Amino acid sequence: MSFYGDKIRISVFGESHGEAIGTVIEGLPAGFRIDMEKLGDFLKRRAPGGKYTTKRKEADEPKFISGLMDGVTTGAPLTALIYNTNTRSGDYAKLKEIPRPSHADYPAYVKFGGFNDIRGGGHFSARITAPLCIAGGILLQMLEEKGIHIGSHIYEIAGVPDEAFDPMLCDLEKLHAAGKKDFAVLDDDAGEKMKEKIASAALAGDSVGGIIECAILGLPAGLGDTLFSGLEGMIAQAVFAIPAVKGLEFGAGFAAARKMGSENNDPYAYIDGEVKTLSNNAGGILGGISTGMPIIFRAAFKPTPSIAKEQNSINLASKENVKLAITGRHDPCVAVRAAAIVEAVAAAAIAGLVL
Amino acid sequence: MSFYGDKIRISVFGESHGEAIGTVIEGLPAGFRIDMEKLGDFLKRRAPGGKYTTKRKEADEPKFISGLMDGVTTGAPLTALIYNTNTRSGDYAKLKEIPRPSHADYPAYVKFGGFNDIRGGGHFSARITAPLCIAGGILLQMLEEKGIHIGSHIYEIAGVPDEAFDPMLCDLEKLHAAGKKDFAVLDDDAGEKMKEKIASAALAGDSVGGIIECAILGLPAGLGDTLFSGLEGMIAQAVFAIPAVKGLEFGAGFAAARKMGSENNDPYAYIDGEVKTLSNNAGGILGGISTGMPIIFRAAFKPTPSIAKEQNSINLASKENVKLAITGRHDPCVAVRAAAIVEAVAAAAIAGLVL
Amino acid sequence: MSFYGDKIRISVFGESHGEAIGTVIEGLPAGFRIDMEKLGDFLKRRAPGGKYTTKRKEADEPKFISGLMDGVTTGAPLTALIYNTNTRSGDYAKLKEIPRPSHADYPAYVKFGGFNDIRGGGHFSARITAPLCIAGGILLQMLEEKGIHIGSHIYEIAGVPDEAFDPMLCDLEKLHAAGKKDFAVLDDDAGEKMKEKIASAALAGDSVGGIIECAILGLPAGLGDTLFSGLEGMIAQAVFAIPAVKGLEFGAGFAAARKMGSENNDPYAYIDGEVKTLSNNAGGILGGISTGMPIIFRAAFKPTPSIAKEQNSINLASKENVKLAITGRHDPCVAVRAAAIVEAVAAAAIAGLVL
Amino acid sequence: MSFYGDKIRISVFGESHGEAIGTVIEGLPAGFRIDMEKLGDFLKRRAPGGKYTTKRKEADEPKFISGLMDGVTTGAPLTALIYNTNTRSGDYAKLKEIPRPSHADYPAYVKFGGFNDIRGGGHFSARITAPLCIAGGILLQMLEEKGIHIGSHIYEIAGVPDEAFDPMLCDLEKLHAAGKKDFAVLDDDAGEKMKEKIASAALAGDSVGGIIECAILGLPAGLGDTLFSGLEGMIAQAVFAIPAVKGLEFGAGFAAARKMGSENNDPYAYIDGEVKTLSNNAGGILGGISTGMPIIFRAAFKPTPSIAKEQNSINLASKENVKLAITGRHDPCVAVRAAAIVEAVAAAAIAGLVL
Repeated sequence: MSFYGDKIRISVFGESHGEAIGTVIEGLPAGFRIDMEKLGDFLKRRAPGGKYTTKRKEADEPKFISGLMDGVTTGAPLTALIYNTNTRSGDYAKLKEIPRPSHADYPAYVKFGGFNDIRGGGHFSARITAPLCIAGGILLQMLEEKGIHIGSHIYEIAGVPDEAFDPMLCDLEKLHAAGKKDFAVLDDDAGEKMKEKIASAALAGDSVGGIIECAILGLPAGLGDTLFSGLEGMIAQAVFAIPAVKGLEFGAGFAAARKMGSENNDPYAYIDGEVKTLSNNAGGILGGISTGMPIIFRAAFKPTPSIAKEQNSINLASKENVKLAITGRHDPCVAVRAAAIVEAVAAAAIAGLVL
Repeated sequence: MSFYGDKIRISVFGESHGEAIGTVIEGLPAGFRIDMEKLGDFLKRRAPGGKYTTKRKEADEPKFISGLMDGVTTGAPLTALIYNTNTRSGDYAKLKEIPRPSHADYPAYVKFGGFNDIRGGGHFSARITAPLCIAGGILLQMLEEKGIHIGSHIYEIAGVPDEAFDPMLCDLEKLHAAGKKDFAVLDDDAGEKMKEKIASAALAGDSVGGIIECAILGLPAGLGDTLFSGLEGMIAQAVFAIPAVKGLEFGAGFAAARKMGSENNDPYAYIDGEVKTLSNNAGGILGGISTGMPIIFRAAFKPTPSIAKEQNSINLASKENVKLAITGRHDPCVAVRAAAIVEAVAAAAIAGLVL
Repeated sequence: MSFYGDKIRISVFGESHGEAIGTVIEGLPAGFRIDMEKLGDFLKRRAPGGKYTTKRKEADEPKFISGLMDGVTTGAPLTALIYNTNTRSGDYAKLKEIPRPSHADYPAYVKFGGFNDIRGGGHFSARITAPLCIAGGILLQMLEEKGIHIGSHIYEIAGVPDEAFDPMLCDLEKLHAAGKKDFAVLDDDAGEKMKEKIASAALAGDSVGGIIECAILGLPAGLGDTLFSGLEGMIAQAVFAIPAVKGLEFGAGFAAARKMGSENNDPYAYIDGEVKTLSNNAGGILGGISTGMPIIFRAAFKPTPSIAKEQNSINLASKENVKLAITGRHDPCVAVRAAAIVEAVAAAAIAGLVL
Repeated sequence: MSFYGDKIRISVFGESHGEAIGTVIEGLPAGFRIDMEKLGDFLKRRAPGGKYTTKRKEADEPKFISGLMDGVTTGAPLTALIYNTNTRSGDYAKLKEIPRPSHADYPAYVKFGGFNDIRGGGHFSARITAPLCIAGGILLQMLEEKGIHIGSHIYEIAGVPDEAFDPMLCDLEKLHAAGKKDFAVLDDDAGEKMKEKIASAALAGDSVGGIIECAILGLPAGLGDTLFSGLEGMIAQAVFAIPAVKGLEFGAGFAAARKMGSENNDPYAYIDGEVKTLSNNAGGILGGISTGMPIIFRAAFKPTPSIAKEQNSINLASKENVKLAITGRHDPCVAVRAAAIVEAVAAAAIAGLVL
């Protein structure tokens, strides 16, 4: 299922090599003029085409077929399509029988009895994140109008760390600095080292993983809910919807488990008459509710499972063990393009609380 | 809000120092005889009273008031209560005005306009995990009848690691080994070191954090769904409902982000005619769907925010910065009792797919 | 399942002859002082005990065990119980095997495999409407504070019509006139005739049906949503939750199907600068959205299925056709006490749009 | 919002004079071959073009863009579009300011702040029922494969009754008899009289209403749930999603309110070893759960609000009372084409229980 949220609901559909992929967004406020150029810029951050990403190029121009009149939302469900124009299904023919390790092929085969569209990963393709970014890109614009800003950067690739966001982050320029670059890091030297790791992995027919760090600024204190409807859970449901995410942490996250309470606690203080915490190990969330401090989280992406190196697999038809070497076009590191996707789903997660 | 799941819905209510806490579970199959002794044993694993946990002792005996006839589920909503018998509200009087750092006090104050019950943390108290464990304990029994088993252990406390679950885990005895001990570790020597760390933190008026590792065995391949309804997202929504959880990872998790694709990919093979993977970095989930391998995840718990050491805080009434030292009874490490809670919410997360 | 609504969720639990029945309400605003006397008066309107209702008498005093502190909502889930004190299970012993015609016994037997609690109808008992009325009674108070008022009356019993609400109704006193009487009609003469019909049916060991008409005043224009989330559908889901309801119509309802468009259309006019319709055949809803005019609907209740007259039934154990005469205490007309219940669920249906 | 159901979710989007209308269906089983000819026949039953329906003609050929490969469902979200080809927006220009009586224009204007697409009714157009029928038409085929059949007929138009379904209906040919005709009645003489009434209303620039009766055969006993998730409520939420529906009744419905219990109760008997009721006033549902008897319900449609006769309305810009005569193409009776739509939403309502 591809729905999310109570007030804002997003449905994402399509297969990698089908006719079109797209999204239906329900519950959008009426009367909002979408900045199409800005949306286009946002989608380009996710789009393939760069040196460190897959060679499959697509314009990925969204076509709006409902919910928008003269560029302004009508309040009715908004539907946007991206037609698939550059598909080479031949690459994937034999994968129907031979599941690619660490792809969804095998569990999908079991779940759908072999009827799922395997071409290019079908509905499980990372390409499905393009409509997610259309939805998220629109929501980001709406949130910005409310003073809420979301930014992200590559926190780490192949073990090479970028500098981290300051957990007390309050500078919009710093928040968006990485997003404006071709390679979304804060520290360009670190970025160069990451690129080397990616290039060398690609050369070896291999791939690498990475971590994206995301921050949400401007969310007032008191939003979210308790237990199963807490902010962490809402964001988690959205972030784990992104293919390849295997870990998520808020604020100090796993490192908090190694701290003393006296280190990890965020003391309160009045600063210029406003309630602030003097540190932000909580990542802006306590008890599932926003504290008014920046919301900070990190999502871990596994290395691209499609690698050229030969791997062990099975043939589901002949029930034999086989060898598999994957050809075709693939990102050697999905994290490179993932920053925009993480921002998109973060917007989806909090939109219902604010719009 | 405290609901979860499509088919099995769990509502959890109550405040730490109110009349009672409890749970309503809807969608349970009719005709299941709850093993009350087994449920009691499960609840004891979460219950306070041990040397390394809070000194507040409660019987926490669940009282069933609907949905159960002669110990057998009727199919109607099942309601269980735990009456609060041992409350000392006086300890918390001044907290109405002075929020405890890294507790939900302040965001809850904003959200509820100061009307929330602050005594003992109110609805945000870790005590609310007791009814969660009643619900989870019942679901665990029902899952076991279907051949699905969930176990967990303390993976790390204060930086001291236990040995990890074998990701290829298939031995029920090993799965449940830690859960049968007073201190839920696999390696008792590691456990002793953890206890020392906890005792020394407590002595210093401080607290420590930890990590729980959980495994689900027997879930067949092909369960779960895509994108926002993937298994990781479902489990995440459940796990982040537990107070103090700040991080979650599946399989290799954050470590996967530092691996090469060729290291992280789990190759397939037919073993005794069955499809298996030769490693399990995926933690049993690909594309949001179960692979048939053990589901493995780890949840990071921050150190208990209630510490005796003096901290900076604010007085919301006088709008002044103040000092705060928390008295009262508190666990120096919430992770000690958390293993059962993690199993409970894991059961809640997958119950709807299986029952 | 007994949940309802997106923002306000109501869970209702309990069996007629179990330990207690009750409700959990989530999403209530914090800081609202419940007028307990007013709530008690509202519950009395549903309570048994009158001459024309069942002889089973219960105080039905709600006991609040969470979500309320000093009579004021805390914002946490509010739980209220009614303990069952006056149960005579013996009356129902043989019904386990012999389903009562037009009760839920047989379909419940199939659904729950015979494990459902049959005593007094179990979870299907009309008694379960008592906690519904606690939830609705609280929501009614909250809605009134927002200027939204809900009232109802017995529109018809055994074919005897009361006078109808004026569809242009704007007088709060008229709205609540019937609700203040022991027998909730607008026209007391009609009420006397209804009572005669009820008494004569009871004497003959039979029962009669009726219709409740309900109006919602003060709901501003523009609330509700399209298609599956339209106001009619929301109210319908709530009203059909009441046992014995078999029909529902809004505004002119079924009569609209026999009118010409020129008769049924409600023309617009500015009256004192406000947009009004000059008639209200729409019952205050167009396209699923409120028009600002009174919302008017009518719910048809079937005659009480429990009758003393001998009926044909079956023995599910022996698989034989048998005769059945139901003894025990039963309302000869469920509609008499239903007006309050209809108001309660109407409040539940719209609360999420307003609170 | 346009979603429905827990397991099967249907999203419907589009505006009458926009680029396209369409539907996304999630949760469909994989591996089902859609009979496209049969689906086309079903859609024709709803399509405009006949003598008694609007003169706007559209092919309404659905184009599948996801979820279907070689005509077989893949299990991924299925998306179908109908491009709008025959739009004459000029007809509706002035309606932006002058709301049509008994259309959604005014409440939609308030809800969406005037930003909604008013052309042809926009998202509120009856044209939005075309994608509903695509979704329903597919579900009907899937249900038939499970032995569940849904049929309907025009029960009444302008006060002229068709013969009713036998509530004990068990003959598939009778169930589908009306649906195979151009004018969906059981009794063709009654149909002729209805047509006369429609023609005469159209000639007078007026319109008429009607009632559709629908039956579901083959649903086993024991499906559905209690209270807010009862079958009646589920079907009601689906049926009230159809524009122009103002009433709904199950089985004897409103007439049950005028019956004695002894008349209305449906006695049980073993017939050929199976549990049956000897009458079916319950319309196949008791306590929200199916009895195994045919499910029978009737939906009342108001007369088409678009009439040529002059009506009173207002100008929202100038805030003046004005006269309005609607030109353009409109059905004089929406009920004529509604039978297929009712079947479609009935399929949507029960699909999740069965598939």
